[in-house]
Amino acid sequence: MRNLGLRGQAIVTIKDIAKKAGVSIGTVDRVLHRRGRVHPETLKRVSQVIKELDYRTNIFAKNLKLRKVFKFGVLMPRPGQDSLYWTLPLRGIERAQQELFSHKVQVNFFFFDRYQEKSVLLAGKKMWREKLDGLLAAPVLPKSFGQILQELPENLPVIFFDSYVPGIKPLSFIGQDAFQSGVLASCLMKQTVHCKQGKIAVIKVLPEDYHIAERIEGFLKGSCNWPGFESVVTEIDGHWSVSKTKTRLEDFYRKNKDIAGIFVANAMTHKVAEWWSSNSGKQPVILIGYDPIPRNVKLLKEKVIDFLISQQSERQGYEGIYALFRHVVLGEKVKEKIMMQIDIITAENVDYYQS
Amino acid sequence: MRNLGLRGQAIVTIKDIAKKAGVSIGTVDRVLHRRGRVHPETLKRVSQVIKELDYRTNIFAKNLKLRKVFKFGVLMPRPGQDSLYWTLPLRGIERAQQELFSHKVQVNFFFFDRYQEKSVLLAGKKMWREKLDGLLAAPVLPKSFGQILQELPENLPVIFFDSYVPGIKPLSFIGQDAFQSGVLASCLMKQTVHCKQGKIAVIKVLPEDYHIAERIEGFLKGSCNWPGFESVVTEIDGHWSVSKTKTRLEDFYRKNKDIAGIFVANAMTHKVAEWWSSNSGKQPVILIGYDPIPRNVKLLKEKVIDFLISQQSERQGYEGIYALFRHVVLGEKVKEKIMMQIDIITAENVDYYQS
Repeated sequence: MRNLGLRGQAIVTIKDIAKKAGVSIGTVDRVLHRRGRVHPETLKRVSQVIKELDYRTNIFAKNLKLRKVFKFGVLMPRPGQDSLYWTLPLRGIERAQQELFSHKVQVNFFFFDRYQEKSVLLAGKKMWREKLDGLLAAPVLPKSFGQILQELPENLPVIFFDSYVPGIKPLSFIGQDAFQSGVLASCLMKQTVHCKQGKIAVIKVLPEDYHIAERIEGFLKGSCNWPGFESVVTEIDGHWSVSKTKTRLEDFYRKNKDIAGIFVANAMTHKVAEWWSSNSGKQPVILIGYDPIPRNVKLLKEKVIDFLISQQSERQGYEGIYALFRHVVLGEKVKEKIMMQIDIITAENVDYYQS
Repeated sequence: MRNLGLRGQAIVTIKDIAKKAGVSIGTVDRVLHRRGRVHPETLKRVSQVIKELDYRTNIFAKNLKLRKVFKFGVLMPRPGQDSLYWTLPLRGIERAQQELFSHKVQVNFFFFDRYQEKSVLLAGKKMWREKLDGLLAAPVLPKSFGQILQELPENLPVIFFDSYVPGIKPLSFIGQDAFQSGVLASCLMKQTVHCKQGKIAVIKVLPEDYHIAERIEGFLKGSCNWPGFESVVTEIDGHWSVSKTKTRLEDFYRKNKDIAGIFVANAMTHKVAEWWSSNSGKQPVILIGYDPIPRNVKLLKEKVIDFLISQQSERQGYEGIYALFRHVVLGEKVKEKIMMQIDIITAENVDYYQS
């Protein structure tokens, strides 16, 4: 859904409405400004026409006149972290920002270090100094997020994307059904694994957030009744060095030689794939991971990774800004949950994938 | 990308442009209407700002004043045909139509019987009686389409979706890389098939159009070097009765008992799946087909069909109307090819799929 640049924003005049409703311009004006007397039937008809013709242009014209600027804060990890994963939603946010530029929407970014709770607190502190009209946040460190959201200004609409904080109900959540994506991964594994028995390595990547935990839960649920196979969970930390990661994985491998498949629960998939493929002598496995970041895509094309599961990351950021816009600027109702697709990417369809 | 209703259409005034470019309103007016003298540097700066601020509002205002209506013709199969497949792109066309209603875009439908060449000719004849500003067509019967397009009014922009006519170059083609989708299907088959050897039934559905032929070509190419397996092509006709289809398939089965997988090259997948699952005693196979129409989705959820390949059918119709709009109304350049994703749908992700 890219590069369209223009969507159907109606340009409708009072004259259009009057003509369509079969009333005078004065009547439409009275309805619009809720003054003077209008027959209930006429009111109903005019309101219907206004709704049909999408008479939102006025809202923009009004905002433009008032020179009101809408400031949205975006609180998210530094784009370079998690193997550049965050550049994907960032791209969507920037696209929405560009499209909404002339609607006086201004986006202020507050990036934090995804591996330091303290960094979230600092970013939050900086953020509360600004007067915001809305907040889009990726609460990947739920503990610190819970803390900074206690200082949330009253009535400030908050939208979560990517993950969420248990116990906090945002205006809307935009993301993937993480549990179901794990179930999907387990089914793909079951359908494609080459051996008749063996171990399935389930790699949990730290620091864990709720959606990584749910992906693993979904995978284990999906593969629990699977004769001949056993799922073994191990952990690596996202900010370990290459050699430390390798040592841990080698250690795991020594204890679990009969690996038939590997499931990595986030974008770090390439780290595990690089380790596995760097050693000749290892048996062929099925490797399933997450997110079409460049290093994963490269290994997918080389058939080291078999499947990547994707969550329309760019769209998450794009829809996030638009949801704030619709709620704050247009006063429209926003869905509680905006669920993304659970996309399956292989070497054969990746070139046409658009995130 | 649904239910957003509103996209970033700029509402920009001459004042905005003047302010941003640091010139007077009169200067902007001179630039816009190409009259009077403007310093080249100023011209450049103002033009840049206009471009940045997306000053297309004027075009709409102008059209609105002139009361010019843009008539787009849509030439496509009856929505009920091919197991309701055509309701998918139709939904996208109608959504675009609704969004562009207030931009004076009017869509006229010309449906034909997808199984009768004559019906295309009749629909075409009816269509040429109208004065159209653009044409969106699904040329599934290439012979007749070649014929009616010979009478194409000069300069009428034509966009193809779904399939195309060899030798005719439209303004734009919107669809899937059909060959590559066949390659993808063969890889999925190879990865998931249960046996060590056997036959892969490749079901060609008649009447054949170019993209069905290409899907099969892609599948055969992908599975040609596949020891132990042999691909056998057979044909069924999309408008045969259930019993005739069954007889043909049973006949095929009697000669090819060792079927390990079945590939159906279009939305008729459910017909083959229903036949296969109706008979107990047949071995488990991997069944791969196309398009998430209701009957296919039902069988996917029941795990009779293993994978459906989808081509964002709804989006094809939606983008088709918008491409005409951008070209005809906005005078913008439209891409020669707008390629859709090649989506893989399983029982586990179908509930989140949005076409």
